Amino acid sequence: MPKLTGAVKDVFEKTAIYPVATASKDGVPNVVPIHFVKIYDEETILLVDNFMNKSLKNMQENPQLAISVWDMKTNQAYQIKGQATIVTSGKPFEEAVAWVKTGMPDVNPKSAILMKVTHIYNSQPGPDLGKEL
Amino acid sequence: MPKLTGAVKDVFEKTAIYPVATASKDGVPNVVPIHFVKIYDEETILLVDNFMNKSLKNMQENPQLAISVWDMKTNQAYQIKGQATIVTSGKPFEEAVAWVKTGMPDVNPKSAILMKVTHIYNSQPGPDLGKEL
Repeated sequence: MPKLTGAVKDVFEKTAIYPVATASKDGVPNVVPIHFVKIYDEETILLVDNFMNKSLKNMQENPQLAISVWDMKTNQAYQIKGQATIVTSGKPFEEAVAWVKTGMPDVNPKSAILMKVTHIYNSQPGPDLGKEL
Repeated sequence: MPKLTGAVKDVFEKTAIYPVATASKDGVPNVVPIHFVKIYDEETILLVDNFMNKSLKNMQENPQLAISVWDMKTNQAYQIKGQATIVTSGKPFEEAVAWVKTGMPDVNPKSAILMKVTHIYNSQPGPDLGKEL
């Protein structure tokens, strides 16, 4: 299983806004910028659903996610793909709520998404684009 | 038909790197950062395929595209969805090649993608996220 370590972790943690892509079960892609995204453990990403609309509907019918991260200063970019589990109680959800409330006390997260990482790809422009790590 | 004008155009043109989402016909989402993306006319976006791999395969079997743009300084974000036509000759392709060669003379674009815009959505975090313009 690919790990969120090394250069992938570095680029991930430098990112402030994450483009999160989903698709309907009919294959209509959707991509939105999300701030509250972080590495939960080496194989899992936590996303907070504060205002998700189509992304949540897509994950409910097709739990596949893709996230792009890049640092064009160092010409590093990665695409992370995984499977979403939507949670509305328990420790990850409570952590998500506490994280959001720290900076935005008036916002009430609707759910948290635990994304189990299944694939990581090189995504920097060049001949290695698309190669799996 | 939604137009690439006003605030959408402003935010689009401030963007340097565009997260471009596609999906396989089975609904596996894919998102990669692409630099060579621009407004071709008020209803069309031109993307250059220099190194596309999975994105191109996805568009060949499922010509649906989604692009996210944002300017978090002004809290504006939009998602643009459309239909891709892949071209490897003619005026848009020649323009794509000339554009890339200006800055990167050693890169040889493989194709150009004309994306006919079908929907534009508000994408800024908040209660209006997901509303169609």
